[in-house]
Amino acid sequence: MARRKKLYEGKAKVLYEGPEPGTLVQYFKDDATAFNAEKKDVIEGKGVLNNRLSEFFMTGLTQIGIPNHFLKRLNMREQLIRQVEIVPLEVIVRNFAAGTMAKRLGMEEGTALPRPIVEFSYKDDSLGDPLVPEEYIIAFGWASQQELDDIVSMALRVNDWMSGVMYGVGIKLIDFKIEIGRVWEGDFARLIVADEISPDSCRLWDMETGQKLDKDVFRRDLGNLRDAYTEVARRLGVMPTNVTHPPSKPTLIN
Amino acid sequence: MARRKKLYEGKAKVLYEGPEPGTLVQYFKDDATAFNAEKKDVIEGKGVLNNRLSEFFMTGLTQIGIPNHFLKRLNMREQLIRQVEIVPLEVIVRNFAAGTMAKRLGMEEGTALPRPIVEFSYKDDSLGDPLVPEEYIIAFGWASQQELDDIVSMALRVNDWMSGVMYGVGIKLIDFKIEIGRVWEGDFARLIVADEISPDSCRLWDMETGQKLDKDVFRRDLGNLRDAYTEVARRLGVMPTNVTHPPSKPTLIN
Repeated sequence: MARRKKLYEGKAKVLYEGPEPGTLVQYFKDDATAFNAEKKDVIEGKGVLNNRLSEFFMTGLTQIGIPNHFLKRLNMREQLIRQVEIVPLEVIVRNFAAGTMAKRLGMEEGTALPRPIVEFSYKDDSLGDPLVPEEYIIAFGWASQQELDDIVSMALRVNDWMSGVMYGVGIKLIDFKIEIGRVWEGDFARLIVADEISPDSCRLWDMETGQKLDKDVFRRDLGNLRDAYTEVARRLGVMPTNVTHPPSKPTLIN
Repeated sequence: MARRKKLYEGKAKVLYEGPEPGTLVQYFKDDATAFNAEKKDVIEGKGVLNNRLSEFFMTGLTQIGIPNHFLKRLNMREQLIRQVEIVPLEVIVRNFAAGTMAKRLGMEEGTALPRPIVEFSYKDDSLGDPLVPEEYIIAFGWASQQELDDIVSMALRVNDWMSGVMYGVGIKLIDFKIEIGRVWEGDFARLIVADEISPDSCRLWDMETGQKLDKDVFRRDLGNLRDAYTEVARRLGVMPTNVTHPPSKPTLIN
């Protein structure tokens, strides 16, 4: 059984060649990083939780007709995904001010926004993923105007649905980030949601207490990150409360 | 303390004059009816559950910026709502075939639809709320083309959000009905969601077992309706499992 070829290693995930053309294996690491990897730690079990949670969210998106890269969970840490040409943008949807937006505009975190706001960062770690206006995106050809319009519509639909998922279990969806990929069909590129959806890529606050249940727990040293993610998973009925997890080493499918 | 004036009595709810102009008091009865009231019963506690559940859903819609008639819950069976000019349509959104659609097209109930389908019935009990094409709605002036476009967009947003709410607690949103009202501001009519959102107006199937948790339990004699609605409320954390409820008689606010 040949070991699969590693194609890309990011901060929280590794991508391997998939079993069939057009597929990849996405492996979720336990590594947590923040502030463009200036802060780092290993959170035992985070990869297992995010693998399950991303499966849960992507499966739900498929059910409401929002296409995405998820094909099948393979094991505790790996899922089979569709290979895409990634659009080099972080697509961020905000319902309440937080993080960089709150800082940039001098707003108090948690302030309700007049309406959901979609913003974009250019994906480049060496530049610190800078916020970019739509003009830049079109001018530099990172996406066409039509693609951008479609991405905004898709992002707002994901926001409505995710807000509902969280509302039903007593959690406020403050903001989230998605990435979008192109799947080429001849000359036509279909856009699909890619990367992951997990508490690594969302801000989630308990509706009653305001307690943070997302990566800010790690960024700001607010407690045990694994407990926070486990609480999200527990409320959504995604997995048993007691996670047993294999060592954080790629255990690839045969 | 004068008794409020009854303005309208429907099959499951009563509308009273509200404390201020532009408001109404909506009272939820325990009466259950089906097949245009050919089948009738009283389900002790149903009104209490639907009052709380409609509050829960409408409050969530407000949070994602979908305007609706809900202002405030007054007591176990009553809520303060905005008075609207009701658009004489039942706006139905379907994700899976069921009910009249399944029958009309000879489809098996539960068949996934190619995409969510929005359809309209003309609200007239004496005609049995007949399904109508959009052409009828425009031609007879029940709504303008612009209003209809806005209603479809709003209904699809409600569908994305409600699908999320239900997905998070292991329930499949098969279909639902909403009603829309106009609130006049000078010459301009704003459209808002009105009536109610509850297991009386949705089809809800348990995701694992397919068990029905909606009014079909009553329509088709499938068990205890109150238990089904209580299960929905329990999963959503809407109220304690043990409902104490006053007798099903209007107990109006002072």
